[in-house]
Amino acid sequence: MTKFEKLRKKIISKRFIVGIVGVGYVGEALGRATCEAGIKTIGFEISRSRVENLRNQIPRNFHLTDNKKYLSKCDVICICVPTPLSAKGNPDTTLLENAAAEIANYLIPGQLIITESSVAPGTSKNIIKPILEKSGFTAGTDFYLGYSPERVDPGNNNFTVSNIPKVVSGINEESRQLTTDFYSTFVKKTVPVASMEAAELTKIMENVFRLVNITLVNEIAEYARGVNINIWEVIDAAATKPFGFLAHYPGPGAGGYCIPVLPVYLLDSAKKNKVKLPLIELATLSNRKQPEKIANMALTIMNGKLHKSTNGNGIKHQALLVGISYKENLGDTRESVALKIWNKLEEGGVEVHYHDPYVLRLNGFTSSDLNEEFLKKMDMIIVTTPHRNISYETLIASKKPLLDTRGVLNNYTGANIYHI
Amino acid sequence: MTKFEKLRKKIISKRFIVGIVGVGYVGEALGRATCEAGIKTIGFEISRSRVENLRNQIPRNFHLTDNKKYLSKCDVICICVPTPLSAKGNPDTTLLENAAAEIANYLIPGQLIITESSVAPGTSKNIIKPILEKSGFTAGTDFYLGYSPERVDPGNNNFTVSNIPKVVSGINEESRQLTTDFYSTFVKKTVPVASMEAAELTKIMENVFRLVNITLVNEIAEYARGVNINIWEVIDAAATKPFGFLAHYPGPGAGGYCIPVLPVYLLDSAKKNKVKLPLIELATLSNRKQPEKIANMALTIMNGKLHKSTNGNGIKHQALLVGISYKENLGDTRESVALKIWNKLEEGGVEVHYHDPYVLRLNGFTSSDLNEEFLKKMDMIIVTTPHRNISYETLIASKKPLLDTRGVLNNYTGANIYHI
Repeated sequence: MTKFEKLRKKIISKRFIVGIVGVGYVGEALGRATCEAGIKTIGFEISRSRVENLRNQIPRNFHLTDNKKYLSKCDVICICVPTPLSAKGNPDTTLLENAAAEIANYLIPGQLIITESSVAPGTSKNIIKPILEKSGFTAGTDFYLGYSPERVDPGNNNFTVSNIPKVVSGINEESRQLTTDFYSTFVKKTVPVASMEAAELTKIMENVFRLVNITLVNEIAEYARGVNINIWEVIDAAATKPFGFLAHYPGPGAGGYCIPVLPVYLLDSAKKNKVKLPLIELATLSNRKQPEKIANMALTIMNGKLHKSTNGNGIKHQALLVGISYKENLGDTRESVALKIWNKLEEGGVEVHYHDPYVLRLNGFTSSDLNEEFLKKMDMIIVTTPHRNISYETLIASKKPLLDTRGVLNNYTGANIYHI
Repeated sequence: MTKFEKLRKKIISKRFIVGIVGVGYVGEALGRATCEAGIKTIGFEISRSRVENLRNQIPRNFHLTDNKKYLSKCDVICICVPTPLSAKGNPDTTLLENAAAEIANYLIPGQLIITESSVAPGTSKNIIKPILEKSGFTAGTDFYLGYSPERVDPGNNNFTVSNIPKVVSGINEESRQLTTDFYSTFVKKTVPVASMEAAELTKIMENVFRLVNITLVNEIAEYARGVNINIWEVIDAAATKPFGFLAHYPGPGAGGYCIPVLPVYLLDSAKKNKVKLPLIELATLSNRKQPEKIANMALTIMNGKLHKSTNGNGIKHQALLVGISYKENLGDTRESVALKIWNKLEEGGVEVHYHDPYVLRLNGFTSSDLNEEFLKKMDMIIVTTPHRNISYETLIASKKPLLDTRGVLNNYTGANIYHI
């Protein structure tokens, strides 16, 4: 029996061990799915605080460790580390490269290594493969190399790892077959594509689509405000078209670690390949400016058109941000646009407070209670993330200027309520 | 019984006459639907050739006339004239204004006038209303004024006037109610919105969405070509995502009288209202450049990278465009990008021929037969519009360089086949 046949048999019979390198939201969701399918799962996570947080949440048979030597015990290894932007805003694949280097240290022939992290086309072949081959083994023959982009939508209960179709690819036919076999043990549908590059571009395309369409709707919303049309009604009406339209909604800009991030990976790759992507470049820039636009709207409401930084008594204006995580009903604040609005308001001389039931502490601040006394002190309230369990009625009852950037108060009108 | 109650009763009982001003593709589709519903229908069409073409195609009870005096006989009048761009590329509402002026001449109290033509927000109120009121009657009281954008998708057999939800609006509550009543007699679902401006923007939003996403996919396709990834496979893989994605496909640019046209109406309105729409502006410009990019690809294939205008013997290169209407399986050539490619090829010194089973004659040219002898003379074949009834096998068998701009030959490979 060849190495390929041996591993294939193990996978199909579910008698194998999967290692997940990086147990963030992607690795956690993947590990839950493999555990549920009865597959022995080891999560490799170096952050002690993350491990502590995970302990009580994950299935009992989802083993966590920071001991790399267990990588050698795995038949399949999935890389699920983040691929963020650097402080300067460029693609930063350091975590990915480190993960590959660690795996190379413990690599043994016959293993299948799959990357799930979102990356620019060519990364699997030109960055991950050479690092793994520093082990002395060759991808495609000694070990197998696959790429299958994560499509996890945090907080979406309708679609999870097991029922979202999984795009799969490999550096050669055997690698792709094993990658397909692996996911088929716990995912309903796999979608094989011809190359790892095609799979890499697929994920980026999905995110670029979202970025451009969110930017587009924010642009049309700006026009609608200018000519006094209710954009939300227009979107709902357009969404009744049974073909050729998909509704997106205005807001303070797209946040999170995918939608605003991956288009930058694509732009970087395009630049290196001397291809121009003007529309994607413009969408990226426009989306970055959106939090500032929201902050300016708030400043205008607080100060009249003069943009004064105090309330007239030499005391700073007080603004409350409601919801500061990047997405509703979650506590994740990475790439959250609410924090960008926070910064812009501070630059405008405003003292900022926040309320978020999912983020009780942040950067030395604590989530404020929405009591009458506290709200009385505020000059402005801005709904930045539309969490479910927030008493919007209390905010409205405060009679304070209330800027709704997310359409949660669309059914309310009142002199103090501002819609975007 | 008030005027309103009287007209409402007539409409609900289907004992009324509808007049359709402009029997182009929109007016024709509308008239078919009203005739099918048993409503007396008069089509007002001034183009004699159009009337001749329609005679044998439309239902017998769809009466056509060019005699305006019958406008006075109508209870409901729908304006369905085109709203194109001028030669200079600006919004041209002359036909719309002329139609409104004619209606004003024959207007009688108690009529309901509805515009279906796609227009910039504010047009119904600021352009059509004043023209109609030159009759001496007042909109909303003496006569009723509505706006309901057409959503006809020519050639789409799944969705027709009767089963595409119809967005409806009016200048006041009575006008909106009557407009809703009118469409409810032959359309399954109506979608009332608060203002005519909202209804006007709805249609534009749908078309802007299409333009931007077609431009986006063409941009990503350019990147994919540059790094040698099959874009069609990527789109199909991305389309397996069950939320947050809608597939669009690359091509020679969006044509027709809606997608490239209406965004210009919006841009014009935005400029007048001092709102900037950079993404939509860029998409409009990029889409206009797309035919030239395709022409350049063809010239490059024909000439090598030197862009020579002859085949080396002093004889002009011969290129064949397959499909020159703006959309598959239709003969309409308005705003067809194939014609723009034609121009660019001629500018590049190429002699252009065409084949289109739906357009047998055009501008002094006739559709060429795809016989062996003719194809032998060609230096290049470009599939510009993907009609169903074309023998693509014959084109492939000619072994001539074949540029497929529409993905109809995705299942074929061969040294002579070029995919975009």
